[in-house]
Amino acid sequence: MKVERARDYVVENLPYALNPRSIAVVGASRYPTKVGYKVIEELCRWGYKGELYPVNPRSKLVQGLPAYPTVKDIPYDVDLVFVAVPAHIVKSVLEDCVAKKVKIVVIATSAFKEIGRGELQNQLTQYCRDNQLPLIGPNLVGMGSPYLNFNCGFIPYLPIKGPVAMISQSGANLLAALGTSQKDHFGMSFFVGLGNKADVDFCEFVAYAGRDPNTKCLAIYIEGLDSPEAFVDACQHVDKPIVTIKVGGSKIGEKAAFAHTASENAGTTDEFYDEIFERAGAIRATTWQQFLDISLALGMQPTPRGDHIVMITNGGGSGLLSCDHFERCGLPLHELSEISPGLAGRIRAYMPMFGSPLNPVDISGTASPIQYKGAFTQAMRDPNVDGILGSICPTAVTDVPAVTDVVIQIHETYKHLGKPFIMECQGGEECQEAIMKLRDHGIPAYPTAEQAVNAMVALYKYGQIKRRKA
Amino acid sequence: MKVERARDYVVENLPYALNPRSIAVVGASRYPTKVGYKVIEELCRWGYKGELYPVNPRSKLVQGLPAYPTVKDIPYDVDLVFVAVPAHIVKSVLEDCVAKKVKIVVIATSAFKEIGRGELQNQLTQYCRDNQLPLIGPNLVGMGSPYLNFNCGFIPYLPIKGPVAMISQSGANLLAALGTSQKDHFGMSFFVGLGNKADVDFCEFVAYAGRDPNTKCLAIYIEGLDSPEAFVDACQHVDKPIVTIKVGGSKIGEKAAFAHTASENAGTTDEFYDEIFERAGAIRATTWQQFLDISLALGMQPTPRGDHIVMITNGGGSGLLSCDHFERCGLPLHELSEISPGLAGRIRAYMPMFGSPLNPVDISGTASPIQYKGAFTQAMRDPNVDGILGSICPTAVTDVPAVTDVVIQIHETYKHLGKPFIMECQGGEECQEAIMKLRDHGIPAYPTAEQAVNAMVALYKYGQIKRRKA
Repeated sequence: MKVERARDYVVENLPYALNPRSIAVVGASRYPTKVGYKVIEELCRWGYKGELYPVNPRSKLVQGLPAYPTVKDIPYDVDLVFVAVPAHIVKSVLEDCVAKKVKIVVIATSAFKEIGRGELQNQLTQYCRDNQLPLIGPNLVGMGSPYLNFNCGFIPYLPIKGPVAMISQSGANLLAALGTSQKDHFGMSFFVGLGNKADVDFCEFVAYAGRDPNTKCLAIYIEGLDSPEAFVDACQHVDKPIVTIKVGGSKIGEKAAFAHTASENAGTTDEFYDEIFERAGAIRATTWQQFLDISLALGMQPTPRGDHIVMITNGGGSGLLSCDHFERCGLPLHELSEISPGLAGRIRAYMPMFGSPLNPVDISGTASPIQYKGAFTQAMRDPNVDGILGSICPTAVTDVPAVTDVVIQIHETYKHLGKPFIMECQGGEECQEAIMKLRDHGIPAYPTAEQAVNAMVALYKYGQIKRRKA
Repeated sequence: MKVERARDYVVENLPYALNPRSIAVVGASRYPTKVGYKVIEELCRWGYKGELYPVNPRSKLVQGLPAYPTVKDIPYDVDLVFVAVPAHIVKSVLEDCVAKKVKIVVIATSAFKEIGRGELQNQLTQYCRDNQLPLIGPNLVGMGSPYLNFNCGFIPYLPIKGPVAMISQSGANLLAALGTSQKDHFGMSFFVGLGNKADVDFCEFVAYAGRDPNTKCLAIYIEGLDSPEAFVDACQHVDKPIVTIKVGGSKIGEKAAFAHTASENAGTTDEFYDEIFERAGAIRATTWQQFLDISLALGMQPTPRGDHIVMITNGGGSGLLSCDHFERCGLPLHELSEISPGLAGRIRAYMPMFGSPLNPVDISGTASPIQYKGAFTQAMRDPNVDGILGSICPTAVTDVPAVTDVVIQIHETYKHLGKPFIMECQGGEECQEAIMKLRDHGIPAYPTAEQAVNAMVALYKYGQIKRRKA
């Protein structure tokens, strides 16, 4: 539901959504497949340290915890109320929440506006707004943070710790991202599903993420903005990179977005959203993969001062895929001789005669860790170089783990120079392991050339956005 | 070097490149880091069953095998000669090969035309053509096939068995693909690096792959075509899907392609190659990931008869990413009601009230294996449905392995209908395992929505190409 701008009382209460001292679960259940069971199970399993109050009118004990008939019956303060009861009961729960003066309410229940019950949903919105009770949802999966061991919802696992705040209207995509986090070492600061966003809006979580110390980059999956101007305003006030992906722009997608999260896209076009994101200073991704890839890079690395990017690889083919893609993305590579007069000569010392000190620099398939180290060091130290994209191809003589360690060492040594360093490592199991280790050390690393290029291009774009904002 | 068209004597001898009865390795070495050591090591390790003759003028024994001073000194017939000696010695090796009447010669040696020694390379080409000795390379990594346990080159591992013939000018990209094959279950029929392609041309391997019974799809990485017309002609005569990726089209890429494999791109544009591939009936990929993804689908699944694709998912967000991407790719989804009057009603029986029988069909995050089975069965049996894209999102209650088994069962049961079936499974480890299992059962499966859509779009495009050819 539309807001004029991020509301102070909402933003001030959002910390209770991710770090509540006490939680009541309405619809707490003894049946393991129910949301009202899962949420308690996961809170306990992941180490929630606050108070937990099951609410269930037909049980005195749920999962070993004393249960209460209603929220009002809980004899202690309650920060967050998590609601997992059928749609028609929700209104009375909200009345109890207001009476109880809870800080925030989260509604997991589905079957509101997305199936045509817009009026029912709007009544809840109005009631909460009249009473200044922030409502997240309905029709959402939950939220959490690995920094707080907080898993509150219908969520099988926490992500690993890291820089990206994931704000998603879709529950399934959010869960997929959490799985990817574990599998591909994509670190998150916190995550939240917004669902139908009947009350709490994107703009308010943007403001919250802007203040969250663990968040270095905001990644936002959008099915429809109710309040584009409030979104632009909130983003403009955040001094962190913001990545968006917007769906529902296709003819059938418009209907699907409504059926999914009651998002309204009638009358808007993809170009409309391009302009919104442009004004917001947000970088728009086209595909889900790109969305994750560039968010990670923006969360981990500084922006390049200019477009003097040097690519160093032991695979000529990887270099070619990259330089073509750089040009396709509007950031063509320059030859080393244009970037810095002596650089080609200094790098040449670290490659065989059939290598190529162009840019991409091909130190050849025979490159040793020492040659990698020499080439990276020369590029890193050269004051005319603004950023480095390195690439490891697993030839029969490449010592992938040793080169990985060289990269980590170079990154540590020269981090103070503030030059972005991105890696690509295309191949099998050992490359996947290298990617994980590099990510664990703060270096965005990817399995294909184009993904790494997309990441560097995003850093460059964000540098331009920062300069424009300054 | 240019050819007018695929030469019969070359195509007839190419089987000796992948299935030779005997191999001489010139430059066979006792030093484990040398190509001339690796090639013998890998041939033995992967189970080459033919005869192996090291050639080394300074040793009588190399890796436990009797060695000969020259190819001419080998007292037996030799099918393939693998050359790993410095560039200036290669000519005399070729003279011995001609004298010995070998079937084919493979030159791994670098430092020819790609570093400015065009004349030296051209002399070799002319000599081989005058004597009808097919030469593969120089400056290549090798070739092999998992069906023949054949690993001939500077190659750390074989791919898994499967439908895709990988023909690559780049050695490093080829090796990356082999690694991906192991890690992501991307099956190959055979693979070959072409390097500088001084003699044997793409068109000749296209003709060979067209005849190879294990090959169901050709995947071709190109840095430059010397003989575009011969390529078009060869492709037109092949009754299998062909996927290309062409690099070296950017300003700096043109130079990098020459420095890498002496490929000449001056005067050609990306549009020029678009037209070549269009005439060839080849599908051009833009990124490396897309190149692999669509090759796998084309190697595994039939083409849809029309554009009535139905997507079934338990994740609304995944459905939205997909339907937007379908439209972006020029193949918008149609609503179920347009595709088949009763289908929405029949599928509705397998979803809760908050699911959506639009298209994408959202059977909701609570979907059970039985509901998946019901929905897939309805879509598969409907004669108006041309193809199915299924998607599994790992919600807290999704039984990913059980749904995977349902998909495999449905695929087996209805394979005879000739409808393409593609899966997406986005998330963590269990999704990766599902993808592997699905691929092992002939179902192309991918970790993101857009990858799965690209695969379906490629099948649709190949259907159009086939109809045009017919």
